[in-house]
Amino acid sequence: MPGRRDPIAVFDSGVGGLTVLHELLVSLPQEDFVYLGDTARFPYGERSAAELERFVVEIGTRLLGHGAKLLVVACNSATAAGMGALQTLAATGIDVVGVVTPESHLAADATRSGRIGLLGTRATVASGAYQRAVAAVAPDATLVSVACPELAPIIQRGFPFDEAVVDTVRGYCAPLREAGVDTVILGCTHYPLVRPVIQRELGRGVAIVSSGHAIAEEVHAELAAAGVERAEGAKGDYRFLATGDPDGFRRLGTRFLQLPIDEVRHVELPRAAAA
Amino acid sequence: MPGRRDPIAVFDSGVGGLTVLHELLVSLPQEDFVYLGDTARFPYGERSAAELERFVVEIGTRLLGHGAKLLVVACNSATAAGMGALQTLAATGIDVVGVVTPESHLAADATRSGRIGLLGTRATVASGAYQRAVAAVAPDATLVSVACPELAPIIQRGFPFDEAVVDTVRGYCAPLREAGVDTVILGCTHYPLVRPVIQRELGRGVAIVSSGHAIAEEVHAELAAAGVERAEGAKGDYRFLATGDPDGFRRLGTRFLQLPIDEVRHVELPRAAAA
Repeated sequence: MPGRRDPIAVFDSGVGGLTVLHELLVSLPQEDFVYLGDTARFPYGERSAAELERFVVEIGTRLLGHGAKLLVVACNSATAAGMGALQTLAATGIDVVGVVTPESHLAADATRSGRIGLLGTRATVASGAYQRAVAAVAPDATLVSVACPELAPIIQRGFPFDEAVVDTVRGYCAPLREAGVDTVILGCTHYPLVRPVIQRELGRGVAIVSSGHAIAEEVHAELAAAGVERAEGAKGDYRFLATGDPDGFRRLGTRFLQLPIDEVRHVELPRAAAA
Repeated sequence: MPGRRDPIAVFDSGVGGLTVLHELLVSLPQEDFVYLGDTARFPYGERSAAELERFVVEIGTRLLGHGAKLLVVACNSATAAGMGALQTLAATGIDVVGVVTPESHLAADATRSGRIGLLGTRATVASGAYQRAVAAVAPDATLVSVACPELAPIIQRGFPFDEAVVDTVRGYCAPLREAGVDTVILGCTHYPLVRPVIQRELGRGVAIVSSGHAIAEEVHAELAAAGVERAEGAKGDYRFLATGDPDGFRRLGTRFLQLPIDEVRHVELPRAAAA
């Protein structure tokens, strides 16, 4: 039975989900958080749906075993391809929040022309999860999806950003410019780091939707509904687990989190070696 | 006589003003920009008003000598203390945009309680420029000003941010929390880099106002009024001058600009040595 003082668990394939944790830390400073980066198996974007479902159940179970009161899947590929797994976890009475639905709601609210663009990994685009989620809230909208296999890896590798990053972004944005979309969903938690480059390519008139803030609101609502939110005014903490190299996680992670990262603890997942 | 194809000049004491240039590049991708960082004389925050007035005239004249069609003073200390110099330049028919007025308008629009906070350098707070600018647009509002002598230097030195940065921010935010402000002006172009830390300290309910976006809108309006804006669709470029070490400028500057920085050219100002 989860309690008020238990932490909120957040996981992603690596450091990208820290852009979501960032928004959670700003919105809910009174809560404790535990974040797991499955860096040993990064990136998820080229994984099969079956693999991703397995990862979600495995990691979700592990984190809930640590006594978390809510699970946030801060990875679009895992959410999009692992919806079944999320539902399996939810059926056991566990509160699970993923990234696809909140963004689709925001995009449906933001668009005036009904033409929405999506930038995402191959796994995310192939899953069709955004097509379904957008259709559910905006049946008349058109979704133009662009799979961006190079984008998350180049962001992860490349800071400071150089012209190669700008060229890569330009290439992925070109079909969205041609399609005349007025709203673009950042369908991967890495992409907020190049949001300025994307905004400059698309122009200020195009609304860009990312998941962090919307998820933070949904988490807040879930905690309130379950009666397990902490009183405001307390100061929560946050800690980190990584399946890969802890030092690399800390070094890379700081620019995704925009807040200090102290200790990162290495963890082995039961079946990490077999993946 | 400035023409449509001339660049827009932007200057600051160092790399901080790149947070303003960032917004200009996103809002006005069709324009060319030339940015001067007076890094040899950084920081401006402890300079006297007389010095800052001299710097503004000196650099403004230099950049306009390069054929700029508009001058943006992207430094709160220089704008606040050098208002007289800005007016002198403006009196000669030169379009000058500074940072204090746009932020004060935004803050007046954002506040509901009429209690506004200001974080700024000693020079900015001592000038009283925000007091006057806020009083002009919101006569009933109360402005609570906090001078933050350590903040710009610690941001410039310290990335990734550690707990010392969080502690410093916490200290400066404490009087604003006690005063119960609902809106805070970031009165220095360095501060957007710690906006997440500030927002976490103050809570999501406090509106944070920074200058970049507001300035971009004012620049756009000025260009349109003068009939010298470029046609949309063109792709402008941007280049850099620094009075100090060009490599240091590029290294530091990239995280302020969030876009690539290629070449940085060293320039000597006439009286830099005497400063």
